[in-house]
Amino acid sequence: MVGSDAGRKAILEGPTVVLVEPQLGDNIGFAARAMLNGGLTELRLVRPRDGWPNPRAEAAAAGADLVIENARLFATAEEAVADLNHVFATTARRRDMVKPVMTPRRAAAEMRRAVARGERVGILFGGERSGLANDDVALADTLIRVPLNPEFSSLNLGHAVMILAYEWFQAGDATPDERLVAGRGRLATKAELANFFRRLEGALDARGFFHVREKRPAMVRNIRSIFQRARLTDHEVGTLHGIVTALMRAPRARRDGDTPE
Amino acid sequence: MVGSDAGRKAILEGPTVVLVEPQLGDNIGFAARAMLNGGLTELRLVRPRDGWPNPRAEAAAAGADLVIENARLFATAEEAVADLNHVFATTARRRDMVKPVMTPRRAAAEMRRAVARGERVGILFGGERSGLANDDVALADTLIRVPLNPEFSSLNLGHAVMILAYEWFQAGDATPDERLVAGRGRLATKAELANFFRRLEGALDARGFFHVREKRPAMVRNIRSIFQRARLTDHEVGTLHGIVTALMRAPRARRDGDTPE
Repeated sequence: MVGSDAGRKAILEGPTVVLVEPQLGDNIGFAARAMLNGGLTELRLVRPRDGWPNPRAEAAAAGADLVIENARLFATAEEAVADLNHVFATTARRRDMVKPVMTPRRAAAEMRRAVARGERVGILFGGERSGLANDDVALADTLIRVPLNPEFSSLNLGHAVMILAYEWFQAGDATPDERLVAGRGRLATKAELANFFRRLEGALDARGFFHVREKRPAMVRNIRSIFQRARLTDHEVGTLHGIVTALMRAPRARRDGDTPE
Repeated sequence: MVGSDAGRKAILEGPTVVLVEPQLGDNIGFAARAMLNGGLTELRLVRPRDGWPNPRAEAAAAGADLVIENARLFATAEEAVADLNHVFATTARRRDMVKPVMTPRRAAAEMRRAVARGERVGILFGGERSGLANDDVALADTLIRVPLNPEFSSLNLGHAVMILAYEWFQAGDATPDERLVAGRGRLATKAELANFFRRLEGALDARGFFHVREKRPAMVRNIRSIFQRARLTDHEVGTLHGIVTALMRAPRARRDGDTPE
């Protein structure tokens, strides 16, 4: 079932999330929602304490029905990872096991590479009370430890899934890290800016703003700097022209309903 | 109240989290827990629907009492950001406003720089139902949009705070992105490995494993490759010596309680 759309394919083949002995249905639902936020759809549950299906999980999933409905139940973590090639385990505690430990960011990049090679990847999360048992951690090739405030590092289960799903998505996302959203229009050209600057400075000359002539060049530079820093759009330059026009206008007659000046 | 410890100082001066009209106490608590996970302590609440203090928030905070107890109430978002220098606003929806939009990662780097310059930073989060109103977004210098599955991009409030608190912490954290945790001991030296290889190959010679002599060099390379890939610790090399010793030993006599072979 390989789609022609590469994006869709990547979503279908993203890592499987395995929750081992989760307790609260709410947390399973929060995990499902976080998974789908990050484009992950395959959820496996090992001995959920309150049984399955669980109406509280469905409510907390807030529309991530796809994940909840396709969740699969397993009796042991070993069975839940049986068809996978590369298993990651999240753990806050130090374990007396010799395994590579990665940050979520590095692990997500590793998962992307594994999926691109055609490998099946899974991430184990332990239950709310005490995390993964040592025997479950032993199933993993790689441990993931989230760098956090050392004095308060215990993550909510849903939050832990959110961080991994978030990093998985970021590792395959090309959104520019910063852009200017121009609601209407586009960034003004330098010619449009220069035209406005001359208009403003002409108006200020006409009203005697630059009364100390030798200070005029520096003041002009400072005023231009204010508007340049604002990275104006063409539409905003039009608005500023309108403001200059309005301020230059002769005072209009008071009308009823006007705020007193 | 500036501590001498730079790490402690950075935590004290991290961004203020402003929740505007949050609805569920649970979500305020989840947000507080996520904040403290990321080393953030200053929470401000604008018109929380269910009043304040809220016992459900305290329960969900799961020990982040420091954050809950010091939370401050405000009547408007404008008042809540009045003493700040740089305000970020999280928003999933497109707004018809001309403002820079950053990813959480880029925004976190920007926040670290602002804090290092001595500026006070805040992050606005909207309520569960509809996010921030346009007038609240207008208070912000910079918008933050989290790149997520475009078909399911609505974040739980606690999850949104978690992502920002997580990125804030990562932006100031120096954890190596990958390391091998050697529970006991250290990585073996090449001399220790070579010593084990000679021991193993000697044992295999003694037991006739390399019966096709011309294949011996390639087989030796392949076997060495298995153990090299495992990146053994000194302790594990000792264990492997013990395994070779045990396998070479003459079969011991059956004892009661032994599993039949």
